[in-house]
Amino acid sequence: MPLGVFDSGIGGLTVVKSLKKILPDEDIIYFGDTARVPYGSKSPQTITQFAFQDAKFLVARKVKMIIVACHSVSSVCLDDLKKEFKLPIIGVLEPGAKAAVKLTKNNRIGVIGTRATILSGAYERAVKKLSKEIEIIAKPTPLFVPLTEEGLMTNPITIQAVKYYLSPMITENIDTLLLGCTHYPLLKNVINKVFRNKIKIVDASLETALEAKHILADNNLLNKKHACPSLKCYLSDITPNFSDITRRFLGTTLTEVFRASLSE
Amino acid sequence: MPLGVFDSGIGGLTVVKSLKKILPDEDIIYFGDTARVPYGSKSPQTITQFAFQDAKFLVARKVKMIIVACHSVSSVCLDDLKKEFKLPIIGVLEPGAKAAVKLTKNNRIGVIGTRATILSGAYERAVKKLSKEIEIIAKPTPLFVPLTEEGLMTNPITIQAVKYYLSPMITENIDTLLLGCTHYPLLKNVINKVFRNKIKIVDASLETALEAKHILADNNLLNKKHACPSLKCYLSDITPNFSDITRRFLGTTLTEVFRASLSE
Repeated sequence: MPLGVFDSGIGGLTVVKSLKKILPDEDIIYFGDTARVPYGSKSPQTITQFAFQDAKFLVARKVKMIIVACHSVSSVCLDDLKKEFKLPIIGVLEPGAKAAVKLTKNNRIGVIGTRATILSGAYERAVKKLSKEIEIIAKPTPLFVPLTEEGLMTNPITIQAVKYYLSPMITENIDTLLLGCTHYPLLKNVINKVFRNKIKIVDASLETALEAKHILADNNLLNKKHACPSLKCYLSDITPNFSDITRRFLGTTLTEVFRASLSE
Repeated sequence: MPLGVFDSGIGGLTVVKSLKKILPDEDIIYFGDTARVPYGSKSPQTITQFAFQDAKFLVARKVKMIIVACHSVSSVCLDDLKKEFKLPIIGVLEPGAKAAVKLTKNNRIGVIGTRATILSGAYERAVKKLSKEIEIIAKPTPLFVPLTEEGLMTNPITIQAVKYYLSPMITENIDTLLLGCTHYPLLKNVINKVFRNKIKIVDASLETALEAKHILADNNLLNKKHACPSLKCYLSDITPNFSDITRRFLGTTLTEVFRASLSE
């Protein structure tokens, strides 16, 4: 049985990239809701409604586990999904929070993400559960998604935007920055430049893949050695710039891509 | 009977603002598809599917005319909508093109819009129909939507982005610039600065309202003098920053706002 991964769009392929590294024998079915992307600027009510439809789509395709690659969904309604569906479900939030808590030395962690992710307060709660002494400095940075989707990772516009959003975090003296959105790892270099390489950056995708491996092993669900693991990608819209964005996030092109309607 | 206006989101309220000025006695029903916004980065197939649902929503509410405030929809599928629905339907494209053709002196017009609007080539076709001698320089400028939604109209990030996208148009010596997206009028000041006030800027919303008045008069559909014209606003999602954005686009707050599901 395959792993199921879903995201509001194509950004979740950064999680797929890590899964393929950590769990190279697993088949993967990916669903990206590219017809309704982005989720992160929308209301909790709408995000929850969309997330349930996305999960149902994967469950209907007989996946053995669901990995929610979208930080907005992971922040807003992961517990609701876990209650509704009877298979292991993990998000990107807790693995990222764990890694950040391990890394900080001065107990000051910055978190950036979409408006929905930051407004939910979910990262604060996840970190406080692990350690009450840690201070969280959280900030929505909504322009980072369109900037990376446009491929402007080293453009002066992006450098200006990174300075605009993150300068207050330098003043706040954070030593660790949690990237709370699938798109943000593409901005690692420019963020490091703005912070003069003085902070540790946590990208949750690798931590999430490790957590997935752990859960599969615990439930005796790991695949045996497998010569040709498949990666099937379903998208609710095949957008004009889809293949450029895919290459940017996955580092390779996809061969099996299908347009999927959620009403089917 | 009211006028119906729809848009992918809240940007279409710039058209409502003009309608209220030109047609102060008309009741207006507005539908904004804020749950699935934006349309402009999506495929023609998906945009057409969404536009049909939006129009159906308004027809069910007994509007006497539909004004498509969304440039992406107006560019991609206005003729399909006109074929399907038996009431007057106008878009923002032809009124804007007409105004630009009247204004240009050197026959070089720039057009900016979403990826869907520019890739459709609809503005080129509309202008060429009016004059074969005019050269169109068209460019997708997708960052302008998130920049205005974030309220960063005078921020250095925005100035940098305007320079990045529009410098080639200065080299191309355009004398008129057509703003092919509802959000762009908010950037008029910074665009004028970058072009040192040397070009004429066309905002289609006023032209569209004049065209609507013309068609209502021709069809004997104008409302009589009316003390309290209503503006009802239906949105598929009430997003967290909705009231800030509304104020930016309409210049006032809305009193009658309802969450509407398209499946009803």
